[in-house]
Amino acid sequence: MSTIVSVDTRDIRFPTSRFLDGSDAMNPDPDYSAAYLTIRTDAPDGLEGHAFVFTIGRGNDVQVAALEALREHLVGRDVEALLADMGAGSKLLTHDSQLRWLGPEKGVMHMAIGAAINALWDLRAKRAGQPLWLHLASLSPEELVSLVDFRYLSDAITPDEALAILRDAEPGRAERVAHLLEVGYPAYTTTPGWLGYSDEKLDRLCREAVADGFPQIKLKVGSDLDDDIRRLGIARKAVGDGFPVAIDANQRWDVSDAIAWVKALAEFEPAWIEEPTSPDDILGHAAIARGIAPVRVATGEHVQNRVVFKQLLQAGGMDVMQIDATRVGGVNENIANLLLAAKFGVPVCPHAGGVGLCEAVQHLSMFDYVAVSGTMEGRMIEYVDHLHEHFVTPVVIDRGRYVTPTTPGAGTEMVPASIEQYTWHGAHAGATA
Amino acid sequence: MSTIVSVDTRDIRFPTSRFLDGSDAMNPDPDYSAAYLTIRTDAPDGLEGHAFVFTIGRGNDVQVAALEALREHLVGRDVEALLADMGAGSKLLTHDSQLRWLGPEKGVMHMAIGAAINALWDLRAKRAGQPLWLHLASLSPEELVSLVDFRYLSDAITPDEALAILRDAEPGRAERVAHLLEVGYPAYTTTPGWLGYSDEKLDRLCREAVADGFPQIKLKVGSDLDDDIRRLGIARKAVGDGFPVAIDANQRWDVSDAIAWVKALAEFEPAWIEEPTSPDDILGHAAIARGIAPVRVATGEHVQNRVVFKQLLQAGGMDVMQIDATRVGGVNENIANLLLAAKFGVPVCPHAGGVGLCEAVQHLSMFDYVAVSGTMEGRMIEYVDHLHEHFVTPVVIDRGRYVTPTTPGAGTEMVPASIEQYTWHGAHAGATA
Repeated sequence: MSTIVSVDTRDIRFPTSRFLDGSDAMNPDPDYSAAYLTIRTDAPDGLEGHAFVFTIGRGNDVQVAALEALREHLVGRDVEALLADMGAGSKLLTHDSQLRWLGPEKGVMHMAIGAAINALWDLRAKRAGQPLWLHLASLSPEELVSLVDFRYLSDAITPDEALAILRDAEPGRAERVAHLLEVGYPAYTTTPGWLGYSDEKLDRLCREAVADGFPQIKLKVGSDLDDDIRRLGIARKAVGDGFPVAIDANQRWDVSDAIAWVKALAEFEPAWIEEPTSPDDILGHAAIARGIAPVRVATGEHVQNRVVFKQLLQAGGMDVMQIDATRVGGVNENIANLLLAAKFGVPVCPHAGGVGLCEAVQHLSMFDYVAVSGTMEGRMIEYVDHLHEHFVTPVVIDRGRYVTPTTPGAGTEMVPASIEQYTWHGAHAGATA
Repeated sequence: MSTIVSVDTRDIRFPTSRFLDGSDAMNPDPDYSAAYLTIRTDAPDGLEGHAFVFTIGRGNDVQVAALEALREHLVGRDVEALLADMGAGSKLLTHDSQLRWLGPEKGVMHMAIGAAINALWDLRAKRAGQPLWLHLASLSPEELVSLVDFRYLSDAITPDEALAILRDAEPGRAERVAHLLEVGYPAYTTTPGWLGYSDEKLDRLCREAVADGFPQIKLKVGSDLDDDIRRLGIARKAVGDGFPVAIDANQRWDVSDAIAWVKALAEFEPAWIEEPTSPDDILGHAAIARGIAPVRVATGEHVQNRVVFKQLLQAGGMDVMQIDATRVGGVNENIANLLLAAKFGVPVCPHAGGVGLCEAVQHLSMFDYVAVSGTMEGRMIEYVDHLHEHFVTPVVIDRGRYVTPTTPGAGTEMVPASIEQYTWHGAHAGATA
């Protein structure tokens, strides 16, 4: 038996606002940051669990304080017992009635709980000697169902229905593992499309994306309609007719604005409109989806939990589900989200970028392919080419696809030197680098 | 001109779990707490702004960390300019794009922003020499509309519609102020109904509530159906036929459970069922409302923001709106909520109890009566009789009604000795009191 001996936290911030990487209609100057967590045990294997919450700068200290609040739940706990029943482990944190008041199951506290759960999964996958996607895809349907908190879901999916979905996908698992290891998983790139970039840079990056083999690009929109029309024109010309170009408004609009704006951009045939309005506005998303069909609505990076994902599906407000690795209650809640998507027949195209989101979320899509949806059809994972060098196992992109990772763990461990260099002490320590 | 010179925070916790006050189906052992904020200026008047976020114990430190994160937005700012345009002041905090990522507009960060806004209102009302309810009710319809962030609301209510509602209520304001000062505002009591109380105590407290003149009581339900039937039987017998008895499940159920459980309790004619399921489940609330009609659905104490309130109204999932003074983005967002309720013709019966929630929220109901809905018909404010002694201007209840406060300010200032005694240092300092 081994015990958790420490839970260490760090406030890590990268000065990305200097280059307008990541600029969009709602987030003009993000400093990509990570509220970072390391779980250590007294086991002789020396393995650690690493995870983080992605934020965009100010408030990363608040997110770290929320991680700190979980220490008393973890330190001193029997590691084997905890990792053996991660359904219970997840509820141990999520169902703490006093902490729950701070959400419930949303915002700073819920994201912190998600990071703690993800750190435990990182540790468990390392102990199993498997990358997380393969580790999850090696579990029985019954074990997977035991990981999910079905509270508030039973009007959309029951444990028995989830079990049926997972059992249906069971026969082809080995074949799909082999296929995934051979060809990887499709990616699309947001690198060309930040609002802060010049037209020349937009044009060049669009052409590079096509040359690099990406099957889709994405552009930020929503600040100024004339700018959007000009930029989409440049992009459409650069990538050619028929090439998928998604657009992303980052919650900028009210319902009627969204419908009018997307209609004005319809001539460019957007692959989807992402986050047209508040992520909380389920009925609004449904109204927008009806108003702009056949253009599809994508959302999810700010969807707080499975209860909101459930309703977006029930209401017909989400044609593409964009799960995020660090927004909800960790791997466990994201398994619930994947099962909901499978039940409603909606493709999952995760949100990524930021810091480490690509590294983390690829495991969930790959698990989904092997053990849940059983398909990559119409699926792809967002990709942005920055900050990967700070991770121990950075993602590898080859001809527009994520190369399937084989290193044990969840991909969420940061390089020690990067942690040191970018730890925030009230100023950007990395500023002089 | 004066300047904000300090923003001080305190982690204040009361050891309420020892007596099972506040015990319900989801919160078995709350320690009522306040993440407390004091804004001081260099003005010669020496007036301060006080406010807090109510929590139930663990995590109050996280909430304090979120208050701390707002200091840099406030210290050094011109007080008169800030207070003169509280619409802009509210957006200054709510629209900080980096902090917004931590919600958006929900959970720990949003509640902290709400507390900062409430502290500014406390200061402004004190400077005006008016209790907050009267101060708000003295503003013109145009000024009130300028306080509201209509983003994401325009499919339900526009600024022009809000203006029309406020103008309609304008002629009777002076009369209603006089009436309010004379008769106060109706209260209902939750004191009898906590799950942790014995049958004997329940019976006694129900009889006392009626004798004290309260027009309604509320019982916690949802842990065990047989217990609920027995306890509702005791309560019904104690208060007599026809006396309103509301019930509160504190988010315990899924949709179908809620419908079945409430139907099983229908013989006791509940005045409403409160929080039957997740506060995030708009479609679930609507399904429950359809399934249990004519029993009414009440919710709101955990509703994160105006966008969710909007949808609960649009979907027909909320027959009674229960705003909370410290859950959303402060006075400003609660004015939006009151306007939404007026637009949809739904009565507002605020959530209170906890620590200081009665002191704070009474001002919003009284403002609503004078300047928004123009009526107390079917309205009442929750009341629980603990912890009032810790406030400088504790609520006064007389024959089942809140006595209208006349002291300048928002009612949110705590007694210095209580702040000292109950400041948390990792243990209940008040334990030996």
